[in-house]
Amino acid sequence: MTIESFPRKWREERLENTVIEMHEDYSLHPIGHIRSTLRALDEAPRQGSEGAPDAWLEVNPNFARALLGIATGDEVVVITWLHRADRGVREVHPRDNPEIPLAGVFATRSPDRPNPLGLHRVTVREISGTRLRIGPIEAIDGTPVVDVKPVLVEL
Amino acid sequence: MTIESFPRKWREERLENTVIEMHEDYSLHPIGHIRSTLRALDEAPRQGSEGAPDAWLEVNPNFARALLGIATGDEVVVITWLHRADRGVREVHPRDNPEIPLAGVFATRSPDRPNPLGLHRVTVREISGTRLRIGPIEAIDGTPVVDVKPVLVEL
Repeated sequence: MTIESFPRKWREERLENTVIEMHEDYSLHPIGHIRSTLRALDEAPRQGSEGAPDAWLEVNPNFARALLGIATGDEVVVITWLHRADRGVREVHPRDNPEIPLAGVFATRSPDRPNPLGLHRVTVREISGTRLRIGPIEAIDGTPVVDVKPVLVEL
Repeated sequence: MTIESFPRKWREERLENTVIEMHEDYSLHPIGHIRSTLRALDEAPRQGSEGAPDAWLEVNPNFARALLGIATGDEVVVITWLHRADRGVREVHPRDNPEIPLAGVFATRSPDRPNPLGLHRVTVREISGTRLRIGPIEAIDGTPVVDVKPVLVEL
């Protein structure tokens, strides 16, 4: 059965969706960067709760207005782009432990994944202009930040 | 003071960082799409907890291996790309209520934001090949999905 045997309208919709999905990609523009004493991946704990330090989130001044209402003491979710990740990885041994069976990256928090987004729940410790002192956060120095959201539900 | 008056090494580092950051963007490739009975933004509740339905997450079969280990009953975070959002918005009246003072989008869960990523904590209800029945989720039909992660900490 070929696509020509489908009704014309349905066929056009299907072709259009297929084309959209094949070519579909979206461009993330960092809104800031992490400035941390953690300089290398092998210094970084796996999760913020595992002894990570505080760090500065330097927001690009173009986005200053988007920070209105964020206050010291707030709990926020910072979304990073883990720019050192390997986007081709599909399965990993959790915690790099070969004794733990392979798991799909969507069942783990591996930084290596198709779209290497990092989620970090942090406390805002201090605000200085468009710089936010946040932590604890395991992201290394220079990590791009793509979004900040208030904590609403438990994720 | 011009950049030429900075020490040479420092100047080069600064120029290099500036160039990287000006040109910096990252390409997100959807790993799947939401198939929902919610067809239009004005039908969608603001949060999954506000009466949203269950939906199918259709994962592109290229990513089948990345699902290994996800099971019915799991709590996962689905990250969507809110493709209908206005990326130029910096401040909003929360909940579209003009009586609530303007807030920066980073202090709200507005879908309109520089990088319109949606975070949805959902339960996996059913798994059929690379299709996951998940919910509740307020994302509309056709919303691209860019990542799935297990719930680890409370975000």
